[in-house]
Amino acid sequence: MLTEQTVTQFLDGLASSSPAPGGGSVAALAGATGAALTSMVCNLTIGKKKYAEVQNEMTLVLQQTEQLRKELATLIDKDTDAFNAVMAAFGLPRVTEQEQAARSAAIQEATKSATLVPLQVMKVCEKAMAHALTAASKGNKNSASDAGVAALMLRAGCAGAALNVRINLGGINDAGFVQQTSQIYKAILQIVVNTEREVLTAVDQSIGGN
Amino acid sequence: MLTEQTVTQFLDGLASSSPAPGGGSVAALAGATGAALTSMVCNLTIGKKKYAEVQNEMTLVLQQTEQLRKELATLIDKDTDAFNAVMAAFGLPRVTEQEQAARSAAIQEATKSATLVPLQVMKVCEKAMAHALTAASKGNKNSASDAGVAALMLRAGCAGAALNVRINLGGINDAGFVQQTSQIYKAILQIVVNTEREVLTAVDQSIGGN
Repeated sequence: MLTEQTVTQFLDGLASSSPAPGGGSVAALAGATGAALTSMVCNLTIGKKKYAEVQNEMTLVLQQTEQLRKELATLIDKDTDAFNAVMAAFGLPRVTEQEQAARSAAIQEATKSATLVPLQVMKVCEKAMAHALTAASKGNKNSASDAGVAALMLRAGCAGAALNVRINLGGINDAGFVQQTSQIYKAILQIVVNTEREVLTAVDQSIGGN
Repeated sequence: MLTEQTVTQFLDGLASSSPAPGGGSVAALAGATGAALTSMVCNLTIGKKKYAEVQNEMTLVLQQTEQLRKELATLIDKDTDAFNAVMAAFGLPRVTEQEQAARSAAIQEATKSATLVPLQVMKVCEKAMAHALTAASKGNKNSASDAGVAALMLRAGCAGAALNVRINLGGINDAGFVQQTSQIYKAILQIVVNTEREVLTAVDQSIGGN
């Protein structure tokens, strides 16, 4: 499992000539770091007298960001598994007509799965971004830059996953699936980009000049 | 060392109530994944007949992105070390006047160091982004989404490091240092944001519709 590799091993594997892990797993990792940093801001807010008013809200946010973080961590591996399944389908025999039909169907099925994994990364990043906004607006101001980095990572994760959705949609023949998925991913990306801007505005107010 | 932790351990440490590692180390990690993905695109281009014309250029880019990746990986730890040094300076005794003066000087010195580490992350991300543009424009088109994710991560890493530069500049009394560093980080961020846009335009042309 990629998540059981050291950071150095993960980076070595990324840089290598093997196409997996690649951008899809990095997008999920980016999302996971964004959710983790949001959790950290919650943890650094909970129990502080100055932030007594938001104690309950931050505790609820933390519960959710920790769940989202764990889901994004599992998606790091799921993306690479889904990519490898597509490659395996391409490797199926294609001598007889029957084999050709079975191979084509397997490629279509695997490519749909490989599209749904980054789409799920996008959905989870969208949820985590809403929490990053709460953390940036109401959390410990000493951690404002961490809330900002959380938002930057969630946006990069979401936009990176969107590229993986798009490149896979290009290989899918089911026009209905392509159209529906395309609408969904565009809507999510727009929300995430807008919310990132709100987070960074809140962070600017905490950090001030310079 | 953070880079010798597993990905899961790193994420657990991030999310915890300890303020380090935090956004600064995540920014360096983001940059490292961006440089690594650029290396991967080079590796998937080198040796391919279709890309024979850019063989030498991609080999040179790869040499450089691998160096930048390694530097960014070391900056993951350096950022956390620099943050801990600031905390240690704040913990110095401050009973006598002499102690107070020594503590203030130590805080200033440590905060300057903690500013220069993310500034270096930004500089390395800027260099890597120029290579991501080459990889996206001339590299293997099957890896277009990976080049795009590389650019997204380098931009997020650079912008995340900028937030860490800014929050530290707020604690520095040396007006000359603040002004000079502020000018430098803003210039780098502008270049990186512009180049990211160029990379994503090149990626769009490779991926096409959807």
